[in-house]
Amino acid sequence: MNNKYILPKGFRTSGIYCGIKKNKKLDVGLIYSDKPCICETFWTSNKLKSWHILYDSKLKQKSIRAIFVNSGNANVLNGIDGLKSILKITKNISEYLNIEQSSILMASTGKISKKMPDDKIIKSLPELISRISSKDKNLPEAILTTDTKKKTYTDFIKIDDKKVTITGVAKGAGMISPALATMLVFIMTDASIERKFLRIAAKEAIEKSFNRITVDGDMSPNDSVFILSNGMAGNSIIDTKDFSFKKFADSISNICYALAEDIVRDGEGATKFIKINIVNSKNKKQAQKVARAIANSPLVKTAFFGCSLNFGRIISAIGSTGLPINVYNIDLKINGIFALKNQKIINEKIISKEMKKRDLTLEIDLKSGKEKYFILTTDLSYDYIRINADYT
Amino acid sequence: MNNKYILPKGFRTSGIYCGIKKNKKLDVGLIYSDKPCICETFWTSNKLKSWHILYDSKLKQKSIRAIFVNSGNANVLNGIDGLKSILKITKNISEYLNIEQSSILMASTGKISKKMPDDKIIKSLPELISRISSKDKNLPEAILTTDTKKKTYTDFIKIDDKKVTITGVAKGAGMISPALATMLVFIMTDASIERKFLRIAAKEAIEKSFNRITVDGDMSPNDSVFILSNGMAGNSIIDTKDFSFKKFADSISNICYALAEDIVRDGEGATKFIKINIVNSKNKKQAQKVARAIANSPLVKTAFFGCSLNFGRIISAIGSTGLPINVYNIDLKINGIFALKNQKIINEKIISKEMKKRDLTLEIDLKSGKEKYFILTTDLSYDYIRINADYT
Repeated sequence: MNNKYILPKGFRTSGIYCGIKKNKKLDVGLIYSDKPCICETFWTSNKLKSWHILYDSKLKQKSIRAIFVNSGNANVLNGIDGLKSILKITKNISEYLNIEQSSILMASTGKISKKMPDDKIIKSLPELISRISSKDKNLPEAILTTDTKKKTYTDFIKIDDKKVTITGVAKGAGMISPALATMLVFIMTDASIERKFLRIAAKEAIEKSFNRITVDGDMSPNDSVFILSNGMAGNSIIDTKDFSFKKFADSISNICYALAEDIVRDGEGATKFIKINIVNSKNKKQAQKVARAIANSPLVKTAFFGCSLNFGRIISAIGSTGLPINVYNIDLKINGIFALKNQKIINEKIISKEMKKRDLTLEIDLKSGKEKYFILTTDLSYDYIRINADYT
Repeated sequence: MNNKYILPKGFRTSGIYCGIKKNKKLDVGLIYSDKPCICETFWTSNKLKSWHILYDSKLKQKSIRAIFVNSGNANVLNGIDGLKSILKITKNISEYLNIEQSSILMASTGKISKKMPDDKIIKSLPELISRISSKDKNLPEAILTTDTKKKTYTDFIKIDDKKVTITGVAKGAGMISPALATMLVFIMTDASIERKFLRIAAKEAIEKSFNRITVDGDMSPNDSVFILSNGMAGNSIIDTKDFSFKKFADSISNICYALAEDIVRDGEGATKFIKINIVNSKNKKQAQKVARAIANSPLVKTAFFGCSLNFGRIISAIGSTGLPINVYNIDLKINGIFALKNQKIINEKIISKEMKKRDLTLEIDLKSGKEKYFILTTDLSYDYIRINADYT
């Protein structure tokens, strides 16, 4: 796996500026496949959903040819106009590319409750389409909002001596919380795989990546993961849980985890990347609740920003869940070093040095069972406030 | 009701500096009653509890004579030493005042996981005790931590032609979330009232005040409300839900609400005071969940800090609860003015002016029933980060 953007066989993409964003930043993109793709999608569980989700989820996603994506406008809470915009845009793309309108999906991210600038978008389509290329480098940039970095990974695996490529591209930044985060993720592959198995592989990968990240505990109306497979690698179809499936599923998992980590690292205002490992929990649900309570506590997050462990706040956050946990007997490690062990504070000097690092692993030993869970999160900094107080 | 600190008959208090805090700020206080009090207490629901709660809750609170309170040290997560400190301190007070050790309650607020500075506290007791006075003005200051203002109210009511005084004093500031907030509240009264009815009046008052405030969604291990009544006003005992009870209960409610409002106004870094009113909800539980989701959303809070309504974030926060609410048809008012009505954005200019005010009432009409709920909260500002990143 590498963090380049190398497209699988038959995929072409593009990204240009059409005028939604200020400062001439790329704001529309297109993903196109030479052959029809099977497509699996995963949406936000927020009751408020972007028009693109309401629209896409009504289509039969069995022979998808293209995804149009825009950044700068979330296409949500803007009345029936939001749906009309989708119909206009996809109709135009359908005519330009000579493909079925129903084979085109939409994806949007950006500001809420703004009218979609149809005219600008439609005007830009000829150029956007003319630029699609298997060597494109612009799509990963065109989907960003407050992100500071592009997020892409490519993996090559061998199935039946055929080279299979899997490419993932994502945007994140804020309003990031399980499940899912505010993010758009596109995974493209030329693997030949039965739809059911594509879904299984994707679901497992998402559960251990995008469903385990939180920047601010806020859940977006736009979160979407698209996974497209056009079968052009020519491998014999993956239609059972054999060795090939495992190889493919591992690759998808690695890409999703790497993208999830990148999303958290690039979280709004983040100065820390924190992996919270809950171990020895009575059950998984408890471990999960504890992990989220810690990850979403503003007091824990600001302490991390101040390079202070402040385990009292951490244990208080655990206690506030109301779960039947003996909060007085929790062990705590930072980057593998005990900070709290059998009710004794230890290694204070080393821990205080360790807390200055950007990457921190916080291990919480609940001493009440054998289950575990992890979550990825950030600290809470001045910049988070600046970005979000100024955004509107 | 006024916001002065006028003690009821038979109550004397004091507050001095003993060396727990820096900068010579008052850090220990004493509440003393000439006659034994009945006392009702309400504690945090955090599983992590300060030693003072674990200790106080074991005492029979039927004839309380004194409460010792310290700020600067939360007396939690400091091992068995925390309990030993309480035993030493209350034993000393008991000897100086010649009262039963079991008639003395403790209350602590401040930093977590620090050893209590016994020696300094015990050394200070003679002076602290010698200064108790019915005209004291120091106790309200001695209980503060990151608060910027003292919080006190006094109310006078007539029961059987007897003057009854009710005095409330509180500290708040951070780690404020229902139920309860990070706060210590002491309510003293000379009313003669049966214990059961004191509890009913207090419980109702707390439900509509301290249980409805949130600054950061973090719940403290120290939250405590103490209500003391020594009966010295000489009214015939309140032992039924009659007119006198109602008068008394209303007074307690008014004081609790006023203190709760003050706690939120003085929330860490707060530049806004926001009352969130949920109306026309299917049921109370839904209304409550919606109110808390909005109040604890970092994105909503930072938008308020930026003087922007950003109703998209508000409706997204409602949607993220997963409750079966039609999020596309919610009406929204700021200070009584419609911002969103029947899916139309209106009054944009007036609302944008209104958002610059410090006091904001946000009304959310869910259009799905007749229940309502309110919550008091603040915005999320740079200063919140500064205070909490620097605190340790």
